[in-house]
Amino acid sequence: MNPQKEILASRLFFIVTNRNMSENRALIVENLNPKIIKLQYAVRGPLVIRAGAIKKELEKGAKKPFKRVILANVGDAQAMYQRPLTFIRQVVSCITYPKLLKTDMYPPDVKKRAQDILDNCSGNSVGAYTMSLGIEMIRRHVAEYIECRDGHKARWQDISLTAGATTGIKTCLELFCNKVDGKPSGIMLPVPQYPLYSATVAEYGLGHIRYYLDEGNNWALEMSELERAYEEGSKTHCVRAIVVINPGNPTGQVLKRSNIEDIIKFAHKKRLFIFADEVYQANVYDKDSKFFSFKKVLSELGPPYNTVELVSFMSISKGYTGECGLRGGWMELCNMDPGVQGHLYKTLSAMLCPATVGQAAVDCVARTPISGEPSYELWLKEKNAVLNSLKDRAEMIVKAFNKMEGFKCNVVQGAMYAFPRIELPAKAIEAAKAEKKAPDVFYAFKLLEETGICVIPGTGFGQCPGSYHFRTTILPQPKILQEMLDIFQSFHKKFTKEYQ
Amino acid sequence: MNPQKEILASRLFFIVTNRNMSENRALIVENLNPKIIKLQYAVRGPLVIRAGAIKKELEKGAKKPFKRVILANVGDAQAMYQRPLTFIRQVVSCITYPKLLKTDMYPPDVKKRAQDILDNCSGNSVGAYTMSLGIEMIRRHVAEYIECRDGHKARWQDISLTAGATTGIKTCLELFCNKVDGKPSGIMLPVPQYPLYSATVAEYGLGHIRYYLDEGNNWALEMSELERAYEEGSKTHCVRAIVVINPGNPTGQVLKRSNIEDIIKFAHKKRLFIFADEVYQANVYDKDSKFFSFKKVLSELGPPYNTVELVSFMSISKGYTGECGLRGGWMELCNMDPGVQGHLYKTLSAMLCPATVGQAAVDCVARTPISGEPSYELWLKEKNAVLNSLKDRAEMIVKAFNKMEGFKCNVVQGAMYAFPRIELPAKAIEAAKAEKKAPDVFYAFKLLEETGICVIPGTGFGQCPGSYHFRTTILPQPKILQEMLDIFQSFHKKFTKEYQ
Repeated sequence: MNPQKEILASRLFFIVTNRNMSENRALIVENLNPKIIKLQYAVRGPLVIRAGAIKKELEKGAKKPFKRVILANVGDAQAMYQRPLTFIRQVVSCITYPKLLKTDMYPPDVKKRAQDILDNCSGNSVGAYTMSLGIEMIRRHVAEYIECRDGHKARWQDISLTAGATTGIKTCLELFCNKVDGKPSGIMLPVPQYPLYSATVAEYGLGHIRYYLDEGNNWALEMSELERAYEEGSKTHCVRAIVVINPGNPTGQVLKRSNIEDIIKFAHKKRLFIFADEVYQANVYDKDSKFFSFKKVLSELGPPYNTVELVSFMSISKGYTGECGLRGGWMELCNMDPGVQGHLYKTLSAMLCPATVGQAAVDCVARTPISGEPSYELWLKEKNAVLNSLKDRAEMIVKAFNKMEGFKCNVVQGAMYAFPRIELPAKAIEAAKAEKKAPDVFYAFKLLEETGICVIPGTGFGQCPGSYHFRTTILPQPKILQEMLDIFQSFHKKFTKEYQ
Repeated sequence: MNPQKEILASRLFFIVTNRNMSENRALIVENLNPKIIKLQYAVRGPLVIRAGAIKKELEKGAKKPFKRVILANVGDAQAMYQRPLTFIRQVVSCITYPKLLKTDMYPPDVKKRAQDILDNCSGNSVGAYTMSLGIEMIRRHVAEYIECRDGHKARWQDISLTAGATTGIKTCLELFCNKVDGKPSGIMLPVPQYPLYSATVAEYGLGHIRYYLDEGNNWALEMSELERAYEEGSKTHCVRAIVVINPGNPTGQVLKRSNIEDIIKFAHKKRLFIFADEVYQANVYDKDSKFFSFKKVLSELGPPYNTVELVSFMSISKGYTGECGLRGGWMELCNMDPGVQGHLYKTLSAMLCPATVGQAAVDCVARTPISGEPSYELWLKEKNAVLNSLKDRAEMIVKAFNKMEGFKCNVVQGAMYAFPRIELPAKAIEAAKAEKKAPDVFYAFKLLEETGICVIPGTGFGQCPGSYHFRTTILPQPKILQEMLDIFQSFHKKFTKEYQ
């Protein structure tokens, strides 16, 4: 057989055996849950997988035009060498190995805290399941935290602990899978948005109703746009809920109080359930911005607006703690129908319980050391160091991008990301088309291959048609961030020149 | 207003305001996802909630005919005062607070292990996200564990770490939500079964195809019954997968190798995907029983049976570790269509990653200390103590139940439960009907209220119509277990007498 025939034959063999295999298979792509096929989660998509592969290639000595991969794709502070807070880690180590309580390695308030948690675990062990909604003591501490934050009553029975915010968001969205008045349910999601929402809406077959944030007005949320999106969505769906991310991911905007009031009034008028993603509530950097929780504003609006249904999400993965790997968070339900709440809690119970170590870290965030306690000074110092440094980096990144030609970046008022707009030359857009890639995806892949910088293209979050963006975290430590911005600048110059 | 009118008026007011509230609500039971309403999870249901309430009443000094609540409802070893393995907890405490690595509190192999894990975390911190499927090093260790267990190759790329077995089971079941040849997909589940499966099948709207285990033959899995169930199920559904729990929950049976061979051949013939729930693989007590993994048997059957699609689940919550609260586990995929596997991995990525501490505990289970290492002796001693004690309790509970009149209990060959059959007097069945409770639910509530013992009625797991059972764990420590069995005996006598 000549070589060409051989290749052909082997290909044919491959196809035939593959067909045989798949004909015998119970589960193939053709009969897979079609909603799973639709589900997209760009933050961990092909680009990030390629970044991982490049990192491995570098470790094996491959020669590249850069010496390291900078992962600016995901809000993962400790991966970028932010140090964990000593207080949290001391408590967590004590509860996992209680013999440490008998040493003199820890301050007394740490030991007391650890003992409290153990006393509230079945069998006094973090190896036991907790109640499905979390340890009651910790739920009570979360309620106290919320009361202190908002100045309004919070019921611990309405709080459940979660594994990060993700499980809570997914389970609450699942409640809406139904037809109402013959139409499938739709959920209003911002554009751009954190892709967990679009992924989950696709996974559960819910309608994805898009409302656009106003980039020209620092990603403000305009009421007229909400009205438009609702009307548009209502043609095909029963629009039942609205998701608001504040501080914004990927946009970094912080909503004004008056804006939140308008959203609540809108939700009341249209009878919408509000999902308030408030995981970045501690991450506000802009001196003119302040975080207001939906719960607080709703409470202060009074009747009839204080009966609007609301769920608010919080996570220890963000804020000043950045404890992504421990998987801890909570959600607070307000005004939920008690029958529905019962069903929600029942659903959560089938997942047994969130990790106890994550719950313990939630306790440390809800009930921080207070002035006079032995751990207080160090805790405050570490917390402020993190938040001040994030603030500096938020300013630094915006300044740097806005100095670059072809970039426009809104102020990062809060959260952990910048979402600059980039101009791409017509020839680059053509080249992207030829590769069957969206232009911003094409750009991000080029950036990764040539510089080792991994950012997520705007396509993954949604953007106005014809505009191009990417999301980068502000998390690389200052020196690396500066290096990254410098490399970025020269890459963009080169890229623009290449496709002029 | 006279008192009666007043009550009426206030009730009316309540109804009116309630209606107003619910009319304004976006989400009420009437428009809730109907699958969520159907979902039942008895292991954490109303009975368990009542047990928690009784426990609180006791703490507040309420007078009851018993002094403590014995929670025999859930396989939660450490809640029943089984001690965690020192090795695991030492490693886990070190990785959460790496300063401990610099002390002389830990043996060198613990420190080495902890350092290995930290070296494989982004930013060298367990506070960072890991890859969605878990830390690669740990996935490789799991593959080695499986190879050593089975004597067959395992690919680390086919293993993903999970938060207990639950998330893996749910995500894999979700893949089947589709219609095939115009029929909705159906999943074959044993009766009785662990209710996570029926809950998930209800949640995802999959067909629940029941096959009955043969109680008269020590809960054996009969091929003729599989054939019957398949034929029956095929009338309304496209039957696509079969779930087998081995060792059995709640039944405690351990499948014979020949039985597993038959199931694999059946799956091949009917083109079924096998879900092998093997979380109790270390929990075999019966001297004539041995655990064989589906993967091993499938590999050894050779063609064409070694191409059957299989997913196997494992958890650190069971076995000799009982680390339920840390939430760790894994699943291994065999022969899955690569395209499907890609979609599954993408879906898992939207949940970010399982808790790092749980992953670290998985590492300790996959790669246990070996002879000669400093931690080996203590590890072995602790492991054997747990398993030997469980073995004793498995025998003790079966003996005790079989001595009681009206009880019949199969040998607990493995796992952590007994599932005895009970005879209920006709009058008790009538009394249950009057209370609109299933007779075994009625019995379990009486037991709880009068003795403080919490077991789960057979209704929660499924049982042959007209038969009554309950599941109890074998986990209370020997002294408490004896006490529980004594109380049980007198309760049952009294109950039978009352309803004679």
